[in-house]
Amino acid sequence: MTAEIVSVGTELLLGQIVDTNAQFLGQVFPEYGITHRFRQTVGDNLDRLSGCIQLALSRSDLVITIGGLGPTEDDLTRDGVATALGERLILDEGLAEALRQGFLDRGIPWTERQLRQAHVIPGSVPLKNPNGSANGLYIQKDGKHVILLPGPRNELIPMVDRCVRPILSGFNTGQSIVSRTLKVIGLGESIVEERLASLTSSTNPTLATYAKAGEVHLRLTASAADREAALTLLAPVETAVRNALGFHVFGADSETIEGSIVQLLEAKSLTLAVAESITGGGLGSRLTSIPGAGSVFRGGVIAYFTDVKGTLLGVTEAAQSDPVSAICAQQMAHGIQQLLKADLGVSITGNAGPDSDKGDKPVGLVFVGIAFRGQLTSHEFRFRGLREDIRHRAEQAALNLIRRELLS
Amino acid sequence: MTAEIVSVGTELLLGQIVDTNAQFLGQVFPEYGITHRFRQTVGDNLDRLSGCIQLALSRSDLVITIGGLGPTEDDLTRDGVATALGERLILDEGLAEALRQGFLDRGIPWTERQLRQAHVIPGSVPLKNPNGSANGLYIQKDGKHVILLPGPRNELIPMVDRCVRPILSGFNTGQSIVSRTLKVIGLGESIVEERLASLTSSTNPTLATYAKAGEVHLRLTASAADREAALTLLAPVETAVRNALGFHVFGADSETIEGSIVQLLEAKSLTLAVAESITGGGLGSRLTSIPGAGSVFRGGVIAYFTDVKGTLLGVTEAAQSDPVSAICAQQMAHGIQQLLKADLGVSITGNAGPDSDKGDKPVGLVFVGIAFRGQLTSHEFRFRGLREDIRHRAEQAALNLIRRELLS
Repeated sequence: MTAEIVSVGTELLLGQIVDTNAQFLGQVFPEYGITHRFRQTVGDNLDRLSGCIQLALSRSDLVITIGGLGPTEDDLTRDGVATALGERLILDEGLAEALRQGFLDRGIPWTERQLRQAHVIPGSVPLKNPNGSANGLYIQKDGKHVILLPGPRNELIPMVDRCVRPILSGFNTGQSIVSRTLKVIGLGESIVEERLASLTSSTNPTLATYAKAGEVHLRLTASAADREAALTLLAPVETAVRNALGFHVFGADSETIEGSIVQLLEAKSLTLAVAESITGGGLGSRLTSIPGAGSVFRGGVIAYFTDVKGTLLGVTEAAQSDPVSAICAQQMAHGIQQLLKADLGVSITGNAGPDSDKGDKPVGLVFVGIAFRGQLTSHEFRFRGLREDIRHRAEQAALNLIRRELLS
Repeated sequence: MTAEIVSVGTELLLGQIVDTNAQFLGQVFPEYGITHRFRQTVGDNLDRLSGCIQLALSRSDLVITIGGLGPTEDDLTRDGVATALGERLILDEGLAEALRQGFLDRGIPWTERQLRQAHVIPGSVPLKNPNGSANGLYIQKDGKHVILLPGPRNELIPMVDRCVRPILSGFNTGQSIVSRTLKVIGLGESIVEERLASLTSSTNPTLATYAKAGEVHLRLTASAADREAALTLLAPVETAVRNALGFHVFGADSETIEGSIVQLLEAKSLTLAVAESITGGGLGSRLTSIPGAGSVFRGGVIAYFTDVKGTLLGVTEAAQSDPVSAICAQQMAHGIQQLLKADLGVSITGNAGPDSDKGDKPVGLVFVGIAFRGQLTSHEFRFRGLREDIRHRAEQAALNLIRRELLS
């Protein structure tokens, strides 16, 4: 079984957006033993679009198009697929009515041009889009399969999970390639590679390392007749990696460091509060991205002006005069722990640049403070990179330290 | 003049990496009046690779390949291009010697397999790679141009700037295409399109709309003999768009809504403070991503547990019992304005889901409160999508309202 993606949109060719949708779908095919051999990218032009789809149909069993399903005149994918298949689009009255009702329900003015999104290829199956007005379509013809998906990522990903995966699993290819990513924090890539040297020569599963900002990701990939057999091959290698790296492995696949912290807090019935300066709320934002945060994350103070560190967090005038310092980080952590009556208080203060505007403190200097179980500690870091890199690394450092405290 | 990119690498098809190289090159072509109509992505397989290059040569004047120039057996791009052109690779003794010397200089052990990188197509021009061992190649044959570039981004980008741009400018297309993106907030895509209906039929400049989460982006693209002439064509259309959409246009190109707010606050010498529940610090994080935030953003409170809304922000017990409400949003905004002595206080409270865990309030219901110049207002929203979408839309709504207040 072979698959081919046709990504549609002049904005892709002009480099206005990067094609993360195709990347996401590319990761899905191997799980179902489907071989992905080609990807085409084409602009919003009917002739070229239908030509690309014809080419894809001539050499691949499954063609998935991404984008071009909206209501504007540039949205030509339905037309292009119909042309390539020798079919004509027809209005689906049921879809049209649902579309009108959806606009009514949300109080958005209806325009007739929206009806483009209710056109289908005869015999096709509409794929429901819970996050947008453009439905997908699934067409089978002459032994070929064509799936049309919308381009916005928040629409595409749930549709792949709910509609496309069931179609793919129905193909029964008799092969499955399963990957698992183990995520590591608090160790650099070269140390990780040294500790795993005996495992990297394995050919099935294979093991590859990728350095991320403040994390190292390990990708284990096994190939077998089915998913169960592939998972059986993966299991002992995962155990070996976990034994070699210990608590530095904080999760796998879509798990995040913030998710692992929310889980740990829940398991230990502890609460957390944050005092953020340099990160301006980024640490709180990441922790509250996890649904369970509501039972463990009390909240925080964003102390961006230095005087806020004094009035809300009780930082002394002496420490306020040196806001990028270990003592200020400690007082902020203690202050937020007391103020919000949290079990664990954590603070971040530092200089993210671009200019060294906080006195004589260098850009990239960051202090993380921790108040936990009657102990006050602080940790100093020097990060390199742009403002956004330094802020992200500061959050990563704080998340790593929170996790270490919770595991200690 | 038409161009086509062939991106080479099984890791691209497997979704292990995202093709930011092709995105980068896509942005370069228009500056030289070169039309980019197709992009192909193919794995490390000689037959399929040479087939893709043949297809590209049959329909495009310039073909640029990315990746597959290294020393391993999977690096097949030179072979694929040679096959497609009906040529044979030959060893370039000068390149081979330079390669050996480079390994010697860096103290890296030499292996004969490195010699793959010294093979060239007869008549081709090697393109120097200052950051890696794999040189690029430039071949002209039968009126077609082929450029081979290495895949690592830190090698490709300098080579595009030093080697590829001079080749492109030599094509003298007598044309330059210049784009400008105007960014809109507070209006939906269909209303924007209706207001701009008289402009969208223009063919030079063209006007295209793109819906982003909580924003609409308008791309104006003009084509002319040179850059100056293209800019002259763009100017009146930009003016017409700004007249039609008024203050809803908040910026252009790389400008952001948070950046426009920091600028407005600076210009008016006003300060801002935030009280965040549903967004958990995300609004503060975005505002402090702007370097100038240090002089206008006082800070904020992340009131995630409901009692924090009471103790820090003075929300009444009645309002605490209904935390996703207009009255709670207003009290939070007023509370943070007073607590941090800010000119403008803004609050966000709502239910981001995934479960409707805040009493009977539906997922996606969000209130934004504003305290400014003695006035207290609140605004109700119902967003759809995943938790992350709802939180992002809530931030966008707050940013839009802050901007409206500052402009009123």
